[in-house]
Amino acid sequence: MTQEVRSGSNERLYVKKFGGTSVGSIERIEVIAEQVAKAQLSGEHQVLVLSAMAGETNRLFALAGQIDPEASAREMDMLVSTGEQVSIALMAMALAKRGVKAKSLNAAQVQIHTNSQFGRASIERVDVQYLQELLAQGIIPIVAGFQGRDQFGEVTTLGRGGSDTTAVALAAALKAQECQIFTDVAGVYTTDPNIEPSAQKLDAISFEEMLEMARLGAKVLHPDSVSYAERFRVPLRVLSSFEPGSGTLIRFDACEDKRNQVAGIACSKGQAMLSLSRSDDSPDPFAAVFSLLAENGVEVDLVTKAGMDDGVSFTMDADRLSWALKVLDEAALGLSLGPLMFEKSLAKVSVIGAGVHRRAEATAKVFDILGNEGIHVKLMATSEIKLSLVIDEADLYRAVRVLHHAFELNKV
Amino acid sequence: MTQEVRSGSNERLYVKKFGGTSVGSIERIEVIAEQVAKAQLSGEHQVLVLSAMAGETNRLFALAGQIDPEASAREMDMLVSTGEQVSIALMAMALAKRGVKAKSLNAAQVQIHTNSQFGRASIERVDVQYLQELLAQGIIPIVAGFQGRDQFGEVTTLGRGGSDTTAVALAAALKAQECQIFTDVAGVYTTDPNIEPSAQKLDAISFEEMLEMARLGAKVLHPDSVSYAERFRVPLRVLSSFEPGSGTLIRFDACEDKRNQVAGIACSKGQAMLSLSRSDDSPDPFAAVFSLLAENGVEVDLVTKAGMDDGVSFTMDADRLSWALKVLDEAALGLSLGPLMFEKSLAKVSVIGAGVHRRAEATAKVFDILGNEGIHVKLMATSEIKLSLVIDEADLYRAVRVLHHAFELNKV
Repeated sequence: MTQEVRSGSNERLYVKKFGGTSVGSIERIEVIAEQVAKAQLSGEHQVLVLSAMAGETNRLFALAGQIDPEASAREMDMLVSTGEQVSIALMAMALAKRGVKAKSLNAAQVQIHTNSQFGRASIERVDVQYLQELLAQGIIPIVAGFQGRDQFGEVTTLGRGGSDTTAVALAAALKAQECQIFTDVAGVYTTDPNIEPSAQKLDAISFEEMLEMARLGAKVLHPDSVSYAERFRVPLRVLSSFEPGSGTLIRFDACEDKRNQVAGIACSKGQAMLSLSRSDDSPDPFAAVFSLLAENGVEVDLVTKAGMDDGVSFTMDADRLSWALKVLDEAALGLSLGPLMFEKSLAKVSVIGAGVHRRAEATAKVFDILGNEGIHVKLMATSEIKLSLVIDEADLYRAVRVLHHAFELNKV
Repeated sequence: MTQEVRSGSNERLYVKKFGGTSVGSIERIEVIAEQVAKAQLSGEHQVLVLSAMAGETNRLFALAGQIDPEASAREMDMLVSTGEQVSIALMAMALAKRGVKAKSLNAAQVQIHTNSQFGRASIERVDVQYLQELLAQGIIPIVAGFQGRDQFGEVTTLGRGGSDTTAVALAAALKAQECQIFTDVAGVYTTDPNIEPSAQKLDAISFEEMLEMARLGAKVLHPDSVSYAERFRVPLRVLSSFEPGSGTLIRFDACEDKRNQVAGIACSKGQAMLSLSRSDDSPDPFAAVFSLLAENGVEVDLVTKAGMDDGVSFTMDADRLSWALKVLDEAALGLSLGPLMFEKSLAKVSVIGAGVHRRAEATAKVFDILGNEGIHVKLMATSEIKLSLVIDEADLYRAVRVLHHAFELNKV
């Protein structure tokens, strides 16, 4: 089953993004240059998007941290955007050495326009005229990922993982045949192979499924880049820069024959759960609670309100728990909240697939499987294509393994 | 004797350039930030120009060297210009922490326009409107030295030591009261204090003298920046960022009372001398020889042609000698050159000062002093304000010491 080429897309034009480990050393840069040179010979048109060399962004963050851990986002962007400029220049040299015409370009040169949200800017527009001129001359543009420039000429960054978004935005604007995200894994797996060795690489996955996998802890792709790719209908492929293979294609259309299936099991640790109740019969205080948390920068994840019960439970990063408790404690009286209950050392495990919602037995099955293992489900939430459960962190790996087996993901 | 302020210059506006060792670590950046904050409180208006942190530019050159020692200058500039962007962002953070309003700016943001000679670009124009807006708002602009952008938006660099030129260009465009070059020495000395401990710091020196000192191995200032400062009549001051002091002022007008004096003794090692003769009576081949050397990137320094003698002798960097010999050997027959004579392990010592040219006895004195010491002068060349001698490298320190003493430079 092959991916249909979008009408008007440029056949054989590929935007290829290489992450930090893929360009983490001079040796790795040479390896990638060799691959790119070969693809060039085979007739591919290529635009490269690079991250900083592995470790470089952390080195720069550490330098800034020594001066001021609360340094302004504007200056942080000026600082950390240099990492990508180093790797693109080095890649241009490695390609030139092989006789391949290439040119490194920073975001200001490409004209990657973003808003002015330093540290987590969004791409508003990409000018592709210059890139198209270079491609027409047989020159490979090598673009700094992660960076942008705002309307005032300020240097911005898209936040961690933002190089994926740069690649998708360029692929969309250039109508590339595919946006290929090269990483250190062979593709998207049914679950983390470090937890369950029988995990299988998926040949294809739908955008919706990938989005849930990405949000729920499969660290292959940044969720923003998946949303962006879906919005602009850019076929996205995840593949390894370390070994050959066709990776995993992220498709617009779910495969018909997999419509009722489960695609994978995603998981993440370091969760906390808070439960709130009301102290009296005054109007529902929970809307006020969540806006208060949002104002104070606390992101909540799964939220459940169980029927007739007056309480609300939600999950969040355990790292931010003490801050959230402080915020809520101070507001408790004014908001008519009862005592706050919380639990730490929790994990979230999610069963993801187009089939989850429609197969009512999936829910029963999950409870049955975990119940047989003596794993207590503390909170559960469902969406169109996922079913998420909160359990004790200590039970996580066991839960992943039994679910992976029960949904026959080792036979994908 | 105080320096007259140029008509129309902005009193108390200082462009301050800090070199690599001055911002070589987080601790050093904090020290400079503290000095800048104090100067701000005392009412100074400041524009900072920074080099990359010491070692950073070499680290980047080494990375490129691993890929391709002959990498294109365009990509080298893209690469090495990142070093300055790191130090300006860190300095902005260190100032912000102290409550001082500051903003880091790269060359594209300031609009430092250069030609397109990658690796050794010349500044053509600097737009100061944005800098003036920031100054008017009490914000200290922190500008990346060494970088520029050409008319196509390409990143350029001014060559090593180019941050001095950036500072002078900004001081000229802003009509600053002074351009202050902060370095790791207290000022310009009568000679290298490591060679002659009685060397004295000069309070002032003329541009011409400074230019000769800079060209002849006093590594305090880059010669291009001195020429640039002279051309735009920017008062230049060299001072230490490590210890207090007023440094050395480089003046438009030589001090009247020093007009007949010697300002200092400069020296440099690693010289080679080549002597050429003609093989027959065909027309003088030496013009062709020097254009051939220029075409092949060989820079010659002192050139002497001794009267009736048919030969020419010149000095050059010993590092490039084998290359020069190869170039000349191949051309020898066609150019009617006789055998090439050369000598390595030579040094150049120069007596510099407005008085050198007019005091005929200076020449005699030098020969006398060195002769008494048994130091053989192999080549000599003079200009308006200098007298340069080529001697054996092994004699250099002794020559510097006896000349320094004989011209009474320990009593400046």
